[in-house]
Amino acid sequence: MTITDTDRAGAVAPGLRRAAAPAVPSSTLLRPLGLGEVAITGGFWGERQRTNAVGTLPHIEHWLEREGWLPNFDLAAAGALPEGRRGREFSDSEIYKYLEAVAWEIGRTGDPALEARFRAIVARVAAAQEPDGYLNTAFGRPGQPPRWTELEWGHELYCAGHLFQAAVARERTRPGDDDGLLGVAVRLADLICATFGDDGIRSVCGHPEVETALVELGRVTGEQRYLDQARLFIERRGSGVLGDIEWGRAYYQDDIPVREAEVLRGHAVRANYLASGAADVAAETADHGLQEALRRQWENTVARRTYITGGQGSHHQDEAFGDDFELPPDRAYSETCAGIASVQFSWRLLLAEGEARYADLVERTLYNVVATSPSHDGTAFYYANTLHRRTPGAPADPDVASPRAEASLRAPWFGVSCCPPNVARTLASLDAYLATASADGLQLHQYAPARIATTLDGGRRVELEVRTGYPLDGRVEVEALADSDGEWTLALRVPAWARGASVKVVSEGREVESATAEPGYAQVRRRFLAGDVVTLDLPLAPRFTWPDPRIDAVRGSVAVERGPVVYALESVDLGPLADDVADVVVDAAQQPALEDQDVVVRVRRREQPDREWPYDGVAESGGAAGGQADATAPVALVPYHAWAERGPSTMRVWLPVE
Amino acid sequence: MTITDTDRAGAVAPGLRRAAAPAVPSSTLLRPLGLGEVAITGGFWGERQRTNAVGTLPHIEHWLEREGWLPNFDLAAAGALPEGRRGREFSDSEIYKYLEAVAWEIGRTGDPALEARFRAIVARVAAAQEPDGYLNTAFGRPGQPPRWTELEWGHELYCAGHLFQAAVARERTRPGDDDGLLGVAVRLADLICATFGDDGIRSVCGHPEVETALVELGRVTGEQRYLDQARLFIERRGSGVLGDIEWGRAYYQDDIPVREAEVLRGHAVRANYLASGAADVAAETADHGLQEALRRQWENTVARRTYITGGQGSHHQDEAFGDDFELPPDRAYSETCAGIASVQFSWRLLLAEGEARYADLVERTLYNVVATSPSHDGTAFYYANTLHRRTPGAPADPDVASPRAEASLRAPWFGVSCCPPNVARTLASLDAYLATASADGLQLHQYAPARIATTLDGGRRVELEVRTGYPLDGRVEVEALADSDGEWTLALRVPAWARGASVKVVSEGREVESATAEPGYAQVRRRFLAGDVVTLDLPLAPRFTWPDPRIDAVRGSVAVERGPVVYALESVDLGPLADDVADVVVDAAQQPALEDQDVVVRVRRREQPDREWPYDGVAESGGAAGGQADATAPVALVPYHAWAERGPSTMRVWLPVE
Repeated sequence: MTITDTDRAGAVAPGLRRAAAPAVPSSTLLRPLGLGEVAITGGFWGERQRTNAVGTLPHIEHWLEREGWLPNFDLAAAGALPEGRRGREFSDSEIYKYLEAVAWEIGRTGDPALEARFRAIVARVAAAQEPDGYLNTAFGRPGQPPRWTELEWGHELYCAGHLFQAAVARERTRPGDDDGLLGVAVRLADLICATFGDDGIRSVCGHPEVETALVELGRVTGEQRYLDQARLFIERRGSGVLGDIEWGRAYYQDDIPVREAEVLRGHAVRANYLASGAADVAAETADHGLQEALRRQWENTVARRTYITGGQGSHHQDEAFGDDFELPPDRAYSETCAGIASVQFSWRLLLAEGEARYADLVERTLYNVVATSPSHDGTAFYYANTLHRRTPGAPADPDVASPRAEASLRAPWFGVSCCPPNVARTLASLDAYLATASADGLQLHQYAPARIATTLDGGRRVELEVRTGYPLDGRVEVEALADSDGEWTLALRVPAWARGASVKVVSEGREVESATAEPGYAQVRRRFLAGDVVTLDLPLAPRFTWPDPRIDAVRGSVAVERGPVVYALESVDLGPLADDVADVVVDAAQQPALEDQDVVVRVRRREQPDREWPYDGVAESGGAAGGQADATAPVALVPYHAWAERGPSTMRVWLPVE
Repeated sequence: MTITDTDRAGAVAPGLRRAAAPAVPSSTLLRPLGLGEVAITGGFWGERQRTNAVGTLPHIEHWLEREGWLPNFDLAAAGALPEGRRGREFSDSEIYKYLEAVAWEIGRTGDPALEARFRAIVARVAAAQEPDGYLNTAFGRPGQPPRWTELEWGHELYCAGHLFQAAVARERTRPGDDDGLLGVAVRLADLICATFGDDGIRSVCGHPEVETALVELGRVTGEQRYLDQARLFIERRGSGVLGDIEWGRAYYQDDIPVREAEVLRGHAVRANYLASGAADVAAETADHGLQEALRRQWENTVARRTYITGGQGSHHQDEAFGDDFELPPDRAYSETCAGIASVQFSWRLLLAEGEARYADLVERTLYNVVATSPSHDGTAFYYANTLHRRTPGAPADPDVASPRAEASLRAPWFGVSCCPPNVARTLASLDAYLATASADGLQLHQYAPARIATTLDGGRRVELEVRTGYPLDGRVEVEALADSDGEWTLALRVPAWARGASVKVVSEGREVESATAEPGYAQVRRRFLAGDVVTLDLPLAPRFTWPDPRIDAVRGSVAVERGPVVYALESVDLGPLADDVADVVVDAAQQPALEDQDVVVRVRRREQPDREWPYDGVAESGGAAGGQADATAPVALVPYHAWAERGPSTMRVWLPVE
C-alpha cells in the first residue's frame, strides 16, 4: 500500500463517455462517475436531496406558474405575446433550470409523478418554439426587441444554454427518450450556430452560460459544430465585442481575452460560468495554454478573492468580485449562484488535473454556500450569503416574492430568482460530484453515505459502499462489496485542513495496512476482496482560523471551523450574556471545544457606550468609555449553513479577538 | 472676559432677515452672516474659491453645453423635444446648480463677464417655461412621460427645488434685479402648490430637495404658501406614498415619518436634503418636536454612520447609508453631494441650537469631503470619496465623461454629474458659512482669512479682520477694526479635537486677558476698541485616532489627523520601501511627527507571500509565511483632500498597526 500524492500516470482512454453527470469530458485525467454509478444513500447530503425532492421542486414549480414565467410559454404558443408576458427578460431560464433539476431527480429516483410533470412542461416549452428553432418568450415578436439585438443584457443565449443543459441532463439520464426536449435544444443550437458562426454576428452573450452548455450538447450528440461554436464564443470574448456599461466591460468579462486574464473579475456568476465553458473547450481541444490560463485564474481567485465559505463576489452593486483582498463580511454578496458556478469551474479543473485543492474548494463551497441557501424545508432561500448581519431584520413573508437579492431571513422567491432552481439542479445531480475514475482506479472526492458501482479500464468491476457520519464524524469507511479482478487504486481525498489524518485497511478481519495521510489523496492499491474495508479518519477538532493579513475587513478577528464546515455566532445563542453579537469578543487563547456536537468558544462581554464622535478614541481599546467584563462565558456556535433558522438574529462568522 | 460654553441666552429678533446666504431662517438662535457681511480674503478656502471661479465654473458651463443638457432648454423653447434631448431625467438640475453657483460668485465679486453669462443662461431657461409655469425638459410633451407621473424616479420636484435655490441666491445677492429668474421660480412654485396642495396629488418627490428650496423661496418672497407646501411634503413622507422599489422605501426615506425616525438612512444625499428641509420647516414653524427628532437623527448618524472624513454613505449599490457601524473604507461611497448635503443639515442645526458639534462636523466635512472632490485646478472631480484604494487604476481622460461614479483619479464629468456643480455652489457661497450673529454678539465657526462687517442687535456696528494660516497653522487672530458702541461677545469655536487651546486678548499694546479654552466656544465679552486683537491658539500636533471598536472594517488600524485634516498614506510616498500601501504597517508606539509641514509616521515593511488558501493561518501574525522587517522607516502622509494628484497610486486612510 502506498499513501502518496495522487497518481497522475495517465488518463482513461478518450472517447464519447456516457456518464449521467453534468459535465462529461471526452478526455480528461479523471472520468466523472454519474448517477447510474454513484448513489448518495443518506447523511448530510442525502437529507438535503430528499428535501430538494419533497420541498423545493414543488415549491419552484408553484412559483414558476404563479409568477407567470411558465405561462409565458403558453402565451407564446398561442401567439398572444408580448401582452401579458411577466417576469424579467431571462425568466425562461428558470424553467430550464427547473427542468434540468427534475431530469436529474428522475434520473436518481425514477419518480413517475415527477416524470409526468416533466413531460407536461417540456410539451409547453416545445409548443413555444418557432419553426426555425428560435425559442425565447421575450424577443422577436412585434412589440418586443428583435432577436439578438440586445446581447449585452438580453440573455437570449444564456437562456438557450440552460435549455441545452436541461436537454443534456435528460439525455444522459433517459437516453433516446421520446419527450422531445433534446430535439428542441438541437433545433435552437443549430439556429445559434448558423447565426453566430464565423460568417454571422461576431459577438457573444452578455451572460456567459451557452459556452459550457454547447460543449455538453456536443458531447451528448457528437456534433462537432456545437463545440466549435463554444470555442468561437470563448475566443471572441474580451476584445470589447459588447458595449461599454456603467460598471465597465469587466462586468461581463469582455475586458480581457480569457486566455490572457490573471484572475476572475466582474460579475461572479458570469465569471465562473465563462471559466467553466472555457475549461470544457480546453479539455475537448487539448488547449494547454487555455488550461494553464484557467488554472492561474483559479489560483489567484482562490488566494485573493474568495470568502472563507468558498463564496465569491464582494459587491452588491454589480454582483461582482472586488479587488484582491476586498472581502468585507458584512457586504459579502457571495451569491448562491456564484457558489454553484464556482463548484462547476473547480470540478472541471479537478477532472482535468486531478488535484485535491479543487475538490477542497468544491467541498467548502457545497457545505457553506450551497447548503446555506435553502431553508431546512427547502422552500426559502438566500440569494446573497452575507458573513455578518448587524441587524436582526424581519422575517420574509412566505407568500411574497422578495424584490431584493437580500433578505434577513430566507425568502421564498425573488424578482430575479436564479438561485432556487440552481440549488435544485445542483442537489439533484450531487451524486455525480462524489467520485471519479482514472486509468488506475477510483477517486473519492466528497464523503457521504453512498453506493458506488462502476467498471474501470480493462473491465475491472468495482462495487463499493461508503459509510460515514461526515461532516459531524471524521470516519469514512469504504467497503468493497465484491472481489476485484485485479489491482486498482482507491484514492481518498484528505482535505488541506486535515492535519493528522490516517488511513487503514482491514481485510479478512485483520488490519493489513495503516498509515498517516497527508493532505492530497491517500491511495490504497490492492486487489480488493469483498468485505475489505478502507477506513479514513479525518481529525475534526474545531479550530480557529486566522485570515491573510491583507484581508483588511477581518483584521483582528478569527473564524471557527470544524472539518469543512464554517461556524458562526448567532445572537440567539448569547442568552442573557448579550442581545447582539457586536457586544462580545472571543477569547482566542482558549481553543474552541466540542461539547456533544456543539462547537463552543469562550466570549467576553464588551461594554460600548456610544460616543458623540466615534473617532475620538486615544488608545486601541477604544478609549476610556469602553470596557470588558472580567469573566468569559461559553457560547455555542452554529454551523453557518444552519443559521437564521430560529428567527431574526444578528450573526457573524469573523469574531473580534479581545 | 469669560471663556465658557456658548451663550444661549436668546435669539435675535424674528423677522424677514436678508443675509446673502443660502439658508436664512426667520428666527433661530443664530443669524447667518451673508456675502455682504463676510468675505474670505485668502488662505485654504480663498485659494479654492479662486480656482472655483477661474477653473470650475467655465469647466462646468463647457460640459453643460457639450453634453446637451443646456441645449435641452433651447429645444424645449423651440418645441423640438423630445427628439434630440440628451442627458438623464434630472439633467435640468445641473444647470440650476450652476446658475446658483454663478449667482453666489457674482455676489462675491460682481464679475461683469460672469453676469453676462448668467443672464444669457437665465434667458434660455426662461424661454423653456410653459405658460402655466411648468418647467422641465424631460416631461409632459408627446413622447415623454406625462407631468408628475413618475414621482419615484422622475426628479421633477427635485429639479424645481434647484431652480428655486438658484433664484433665491440671485435675489439675495442682487435683490430686485430684472434678470427674471425669480419670476420663473415663482411661477413654477405656484404651479407646484396648486398641484400638490391638500386637494392635489398627495405625494412627494422621490428625491427630496424641493422642501428646503420652497422654504427658502418663501423666506425670500414672504409667501406663506411655499412654506406650507414644504411642510406638507415633509409631513406626507414616510407613510409609503411612493411605490416600493428594489432597495426598499428607506432608499427615499418613505419608510418612516420624518419626526419618528431615529437615524438617517437610505440614499445619503436624499436623507440629508430631506433633513435640511425638515430643519427649515421646524425653524419657521417653531416645531420643537420635529427639531428634537432631527437632533436625535443627527446624533445617531454622526455616532454610528459617518466616516472619519465626515463622509456619509457606505453603499455603492444604492448610494446609501449602511447599518450602524457599517463603514468600510474600501467601499466607502461617501458621495461628494452627500457631504455637501450633510453640511447643509448641520449648518441648520447650528443656527437653531448654537452647539459647536455641528460646526465641528461642517468643518470636518468641508476639509475632507468637499475639498477632496475637485482637483487642484478645479476641472476634475471625485464623485465618490473612497478611504482606501487597493489598485492604482488608470488616469481619467480629461475629455471623456466617466460613465461611473467612481474613478481612480478625478474625472472631468460624469454621466450623472451632480457633484461638480454642487461643489461649485458650495465654494462660491462658503463665506456665508463662517460666522453668525446672536442677540449677544458674533460667532466665528470656521477659520479663514476674512473681513467681517455687520451690525448687531441694537445697532452695534462690528468690523473685524481675521488673520490665520489655518489649517496649517493653529493661530487665529481676530482684530477689531473699529471701536464698538457697547459690549458684545465674540465667540470662537474650539473644535472637539483641540485639547489645550488658549485664547488671549491684546488691547492697546498689552495683554489684558488670557485663558485656556475648552472645546465648544471660547467667548470674549468686552467693548472692543479698534486694534484689539483676540488670538486663539489651537494645538495642531498630528495625532493618531482610534476608531470605535464596533467599526469592524477598520479594527486594528489607526488614522492620522492634524487639526481638522485627515491624512492618508499614498503609495507614491513609499519610495524604495514598498510599491503598495498594503505592504507596510504603522508603528503606533511612535507618535506622528511634524517635519516642516509634513506629517510623518514610522512604518515597517511586511512580507506577505500569497498562500494557496488565504485562511490557513494559525496565528494572528498571519502564519509562518508572513514576516516583518526589523527596521521602521519614516514616511510622509498626504492630506486626504490632496491625494491622487501625483498619478495613479494606492492609498489608505486607516493604517494597520503592526
